[in-house]
Amino acid sequence: MIEADAVSLRRRVYEQLEPSCRSSGLSPVNRLIVVAILAITFIAIVDTEPLVQVRYGAAIGAAEIGFGLFFLTEYLARLWVAVENPVFGSGLRGRLRFMVSPGGLIDLVAVVVTLAPFIAGNALALRVFRLLRILTLARLGRMSSAMRHLTEAVSSRRYELTLTVVLALGVMVVGASALWLAEGEAQPDKFGSIPRSLWWAVVTLTTIGYGDVFPVTPIGKVFAGLVAVAGIGLISLPTGILAAAFSDAVQREREGR
Amino acid sequence: MIEADAVSLRRRVYEQLEPSCRSSGLSPVNRLIVVAILAITFIAIVDTEPLVQVRYGAAIGAAEIGFGLFFLTEYLARLWVAVENPVFGSGLRGRLRFMVSPGGLIDLVAVVVTLAPFIAGNALALRVFRLLRILTLARLGRMSSAMRHLTEAVSSRRYELTLTVVLALGVMVVGASALWLAEGEAQPDKFGSIPRSLWWAVVTLTTIGYGDVFPVTPIGKVFAGLVAVAGIGLISLPTGILAAAFSDAVQREREGR
Amino acid sequence: MIEADAVSLRRRVYEQLEPSCRSSGLSPVNRLIVVAILAITFIAIVDTEPLVQVRYGAAIGAAEIGFGLFFLTEYLARLWVAVENPVFGSGLRGRLRFMVSPGGLIDLVAVVVTLAPFIAGNALALRVFRLLRILTLARLGRMSSAMRHLTEAVSSRRYELTLTVVLALGVMVVGASALWLAEGEAQPDKFGSIPRSLWWAVVTLTTIGYGDVFPVTPIGKVFAGLVAVAGIGLISLPTGILAAAFSDAVQREREGR
Amino acid sequence: MIEADAVSLRRRVYEQLEPSCRSSGLSPVNRLIVVAILAITFIAIVDTEPLVQVRYGAAIGAAEIGFGLFFLTEYLARLWVAVENPVFGSGLRGRLRFMVSPGGLIDLVAVVVTLAPFIAGNALALRVFRLLRILTLARLGRMSSAMRHLTEAVSSRRYELTLTVVLALGVMVVGASALWLAEGEAQPDKFGSIPRSLWWAVVTLTTIGYGDVFPVTPIGKVFAGLVAVAGIGLISLPTGILAAAFSDAVQREREGR
Repeated sequence: MIEADAVSLRRRVYEQLEPSCRSSGLSPVNRLIVVAILAITFIAIVDTEPLVQVRYGAAIGAAEIGFGLFFLTEYLARLWVAVENPVFGSGLRGRLRFMVSPGGLIDLVAVVVTLAPFIAGNALALRVFRLLRILTLARLGRMSSAMRHLTEAVSSRRYELTLTVVLALGVMVVGASALWLAEGEAQPDKFGSIPRSLWWAVVTLTTIGYGDVFPVTPIGKVFAGLVAVAGIGLISLPTGILAAAFSDAVQREREGR
Repeated sequence: MIEADAVSLRRRVYEQLEPSCRSSGLSPVNRLIVVAILAITFIAIVDTEPLVQVRYGAAIGAAEIGFGLFFLTEYLARLWVAVENPVFGSGLRGRLRFMVSPGGLIDLVAVVVTLAPFIAGNALALRVFRLLRILTLARLGRMSSAMRHLTEAVSSRRYELTLTVVLALGVMVVGASALWLAEGEAQPDKFGSIPRSLWWAVVTLTTIGYGDVFPVTPIGKVFAGLVAVAGIGLISLPTGILAAAFSDAVQREREGR
Repeated sequence: MIEADAVSLRRRVYEQLEPSCRSSGLSPVNRLIVVAILAITFIAIVDTEPLVQVRYGAAIGAAEIGFGLFFLTEYLARLWVAVENPVFGSGLRGRLRFMVSPGGLIDLVAVVVTLAPFIAGNALALRVFRLLRILTLARLGRMSSAMRHLTEAVSSRRYELTLTVVLALGVMVVGASALWLAEGEAQPDKFGSIPRSLWWAVVTLTTIGYGDVFPVTPIGKVFAGLVAVAGIGLISLPTGILAAAFSDAVQREREGR
Repeated sequence: MIEADAVSLRRRVYEQLEPSCRSSGLSPVNRLIVVAILAITFIAIVDTEPLVQVRYGAAIGAAEIGFGLFFLTEYLARLWVAVENPVFGSGLRGRLRFMVSPGGLIDLVAVVVTLAPFIAGNALALRVFRLLRILTLARLGRMSSAMRHLTEAVSSRRYELTLTVVLALGVMVVGASALWLAEGEAQPDKFGSIPRSLWWAVVTLTTIGYGDVFPVTPIGKVFAGLVAVAGIGLISLPTGILAAAFSDAVQREREGR
């Protein structure tokens, strides 16, 4: 009788934790988890700012422990109810399968990086460690359908996307080579080799144009103008294809509902 | 008899003032109001320029009083005819409902900020006050169908727009984190924390590229190149979806006519 | 007999000069005229460069006289055959109607500005004068169907284009006001008034981003980021609509053929 | 008997080397060749970097000889099997036809530039020579269908593309002339002639905006703002048309399969 109650409780907890159990929207528990993920990400972002660290360091540390315990509880609950998920199967095996599944590993990493912020010793390790905390955002992927739509969009047009991305890279290499030829002598530190010119090609063909590198000789300007006018059209091909594919993927699902 | 005349006059004034009474276009009175709104906005804009203020300050002050009286007359007229509008209902109640409706409040604010330009004491308050005068432009929203189309476009695709905006924000955060990791040591004032790096991410992924912040280390340039090439496609997804939705909304109305 | 020959010659010259006489492509004479227009435009462009003027001034002067006589001959021929065009009608009246038609006036201006390059006295007048020579390019409009398609595209979507352009201007004004409020104190020469901030808004929302003006205060950066992210989508609406309309206009004509 | 074996071997080698023999994908030999082309291109790119040359010069030289021998073997094999290709025909004539075909010439150039990197004497010749090695990338065009799709897309819309490119060039010339008029006096080195102003027009209308040239006078800023707002829409017309045409070309092929 008690066992039956435990099973029924486990079933209800599972239904609260597993987004795919609901046809649309998120359960109250999952909404709370989304809020917690956004909050810990926000904290992880502002915590990198030295001015904030000095002033609110203690409060942030306390909040991190609080959120860490919350995520630990969530992880243990997910581990407990994993056997309800037909994907993992029953028994200890099901729980082990959950632990080594991509979702389970991300959940575990999220717990560890939130609870143990003082492990890392030197500055670079600390930075990487903090970055991992921001990647907790990836947990949102499981909650939403955006990732699925994007994956679907990419895979449905992977042929066009591959072709246009290769074409765009080819345009960048050819453009960088042209400027290396034209400007290499005049600005050896900026255009003295093709790898150096590639930075110019990226900044120009994406139309960012920081202004740290640009041609100064007349022939370099003519080449740059031709590369820019001809290349920007080719560079924007993958973007346009991706946008159309994403729109289609969402549309298809809506009609399928 | 006189009362009946007053009612019929009120009805005619209402038909002149309420844009939704006409199937298309604007009544002569509303055209005049649109011109007045554009004129006072133009005056409010150039009035912020010190060189203009010194030379034409008196003329601008006189124009403001003139337009203020015009808007006051209009507001009183709208208040008088509000009872003709079935939305507000008849009697004093209808007029009070008009006064507290969003449109009525904007109209009132427009009168106040145009007629009382010398209320504010210190510099910042004066600035905010002047800004309110420019927001008089919002009154144009009631006249045109652009706002309605845009609202319709946003709400018809709110699912895609939310997903892509969240994705775009995620890309910005991840890009900022990558550059903070790569450039934080070399340029601590520009990439020393993720919030600081976010300014770089915004300026880069929107392809503005002012040139005030950019990576200088080779590894930072490689990261920035990857973030830019991969991210710009994702950032432009909401823009494309919004443009398509707006086009559709206008098209639908045209066919419905 | 001679008169009949003259009429028949006039008819044949007219068929050579009037592009609309042919269902597609250009007559040999019109091709020659197109080449002459491109050549004189190219000369007019490089002639503004002091280094070129010093070295090739004499040759350019001779070329200008040559092309001027060519255009004069063409203009006289068009005047002679204008009576063949049913639009203008026969006799002296038809020729006068041609002379005052937009096309006829542009042709006359092209002759005058090519033949009389030394009329202008001071530097600014000389500049304006030279600019007129470049506007000879407008004569190409009569030859091609691009202008017609573009006009058609604009007029078929003039409602959407007007709405989105007004919206874009509104976004610029609101964005400029926001930055004037946030940065006016810190950078009075760049954001000290809304007209000054408008330069920032144009450079930012078109994503040009020269880097001559950008926010430096934290609050200014936050405002600028919000304006950029929200505004760029709205600014690109007219561009997208125009591109779609142009494509449609060309498509329609192709199917109609 | 031996001859028959040789023919059958030649046939099999031909089927490995000629991409059009397979309905989809690439043969193992062609995959290897693609990898070799990418590797030698990568080597050619990093080899232009002085820092890399100093440290890994010897290894790069050895790799170049290795890849050169590989391409030489491939070229001889292609020459041998050319007679299997009905395009070239049989016998010595078929082989000669292969040698002078565009594909055959590119293959030969690829062998020569890879095997003989020390021919060139002075710096510029060496640069051009190295550039040729990067153009080996063009050999990938034969392997993939991207080039064919792009060519098809361009030719199917060549009318619209020509019109819009001419329009874009016209907008650039008119924009450059406007800024030359407005800013020529204030910044003679940057806007002193229309050819100089054209650099501004290219950098602005592609929205790159390096920040090396921008208007400084109020009238110049007003002109630049108008040119930018009006011009960017026209400049992006060819890009949009190309993207749509490319998408259509790929779609058509997929449906045709």
